[in-house]
Amino acid sequence: MPICGRGEALMPELISDLKEMRRVVKEARRAGKTVGFVPTMGYFHRGHLSLMERAREENDLVVVSIFVNPTQFGPTEDFREYPRDLERDLALAGEVGVDIVFHPPVEDMYPPPYRTYVEVEGITETLCGAFRPGHFRGVTTVVTKLFHLVPADRAYFGAKDAQQALVIRKMVEDLNFDIEVVICPTVREEDGLAMSSRNVYLGEEERRAATALYRSLCVARDLLEKGERNSSSILSEMHRVLDEEPLVRPEYVEIVDCQEMRPLDRVEGEVVVALAARVGRARLIDNLMLRVDEEGITLLP
Amino acid sequence: MPICGRGEALMPELISDLKEMRRVVKEARRAGKTVGFVPTMGYFHRGHLSLMERAREENDLVVVSIFVNPTQFGPTEDFREYPRDLERDLALAGEVGVDIVFHPPVEDMYPPPYRTYVEVEGITETLCGAFRPGHFRGVTTVVTKLFHLVPADRAYFGAKDAQQALVIRKMVEDLNFDIEVVICPTVREEDGLAMSSRNVYLGEEERRAATALYRSLCVARDLLEKGERNSSSILSEMHRVLDEEPLVRPEYVEIVDCQEMRPLDRVEGEVVVALAARVGRARLIDNLMLRVDEEGITLLP
Repeated sequence: MPICGRGEALMPELISDLKEMRRVVKEARRAGKTVGFVPTMGYFHRGHLSLMERAREENDLVVVSIFVNPTQFGPTEDFREYPRDLERDLALAGEVGVDIVFHPPVEDMYPPPYRTYVEVEGITETLCGAFRPGHFRGVTTVVTKLFHLVPADRAYFGAKDAQQALVIRKMVEDLNFDIEVVICPTVREEDGLAMSSRNVYLGEEERRAATALYRSLCVARDLLEKGERNSSSILSEMHRVLDEEPLVRPEYVEIVDCQEMRPLDRVEGEVVVALAARVGRARLIDNLMLRVDEEGITLLP
Repeated sequence: MPICGRGEALMPELISDLKEMRRVVKEARRAGKTVGFVPTMGYFHRGHLSLMERAREENDLVVVSIFVNPTQFGPTEDFREYPRDLERDLALAGEVGVDIVFHPPVEDMYPPPYRTYVEVEGITETLCGAFRPGHFRGVTTVVTKLFHLVPADRAYFGAKDAQQALVIRKMVEDLNFDIEVVICPTVREEDGLAMSSRNVYLGEEERRAATALYRSLCVARDLLEKGERNSSSILSEMHRVLDEEPLVRPEYVEIVDCQEMRPLDRVEGEVVVALAARVGRARLIDNLMLRVDEEGITLLP
């Protein structure tokens, strides 16, 4: 199943040793090469590949990590069944020109007694943070570790996980990390469903119903384009779209500002229209990041 | 007041800009130089200078930071009156051959809205952690920031702050920092009082009474040398020494293991005999780090 079309694909080098990973990156940088880093949990879709392609364009060496990070899953969440396919991932990474895949063992990343956590306050408590306690703490902790193990020039994150991307950008700024965070546009299926490794959890009916997430975002965008700025009017129209699909059980639907990640009454400035919903056993999220001003609206990033 | 005797002292370069600091260190490392880093809150005494001398011996470039870090002080603690004397510090640093003093403004280190903290769990909850809630979180947060701004090969910490040194060592291990933590021996006045910037708070009588801290540690060491391994027997002898000085109000007296920082019933392995006491308006701490086994005891580090 070729999901991208590069002919002369080379398999990336696979590194699982933490010190070896860092040694290779440091050596490349000492030799004057720029390094791009794409942290992932694997099971690649075109969203992941778009990050790798962007990293490939902008850097001499491209490193992708595949690590299903236990500390960002809650006790009742899908850590164990999260889809994994290293062989397929290596082939796909090779097709987009990735140089190195870093795949560390869980026991090397969190050797007991593990004790240290990184936490971003405030902006991790709304949206997904309100429904997944400890999730972002797991994310910021593992990203800190990965940034130390892969000391790159640039790191690439998808806008589909908007709150995650903004939390990481804030962490990088607050802790003075020496890395540039690049946020890349969400990649969608033809019918608008945002690419996600968790889409494999969807049955056929659920898959069709899941398009309601993006359709509700489009309704929000259209209302904003027509000049609507009242948050509750927009949200009720979004809910109307979601309510038409009984298989879609919304968790939250919100319009927040990009700085504080707090609900807005009036939609203005840099905002995220964000939602999460359960569809079957999948928990799906989607969003639009927008700049909204008198002139109209601009899609970000 | 020359407290060290090098003749041809050169003033270190003073850097306050965060990006400039990192640029200089990166440039040195790119040129193949090793970099030693001594994070301090300034108001140097011979303890600080011993760290700088060690860094000077082991590295091509020596950077010392002077930053009285607000996030590690509690609301009722001495952040405002903590002693400061940049001119004197620069001269002393110059005398021991420090190349650069990094002195960033508080508002550049914590620009609002600041949100990100690093926390080491468990080993920060005993000893000083039990009496200074949030203290170690402030320490690990600022040290993370400083390690990113001064990306050195080695960082030097004094054993006087044993719990701090062990917490930072654990943080470096857990978060995969690319830096070696070097713990250096406590430097003492002739009568045994551990060097501390806070000793300036002591009046004449208090200064004399304060020697009880080290005297009680010596009693513990003597008992261990004689084969005593029962923690409560040793602690009660230590308390006896402290109780003879009414000006000394003990906060804690403990014998803990170096890994978990938890009180031991039987003294064995790598341990810290640690105490904290109020003497006048000063809060003083001191400790002995020891390896205790059948052969006897060895002083660490």
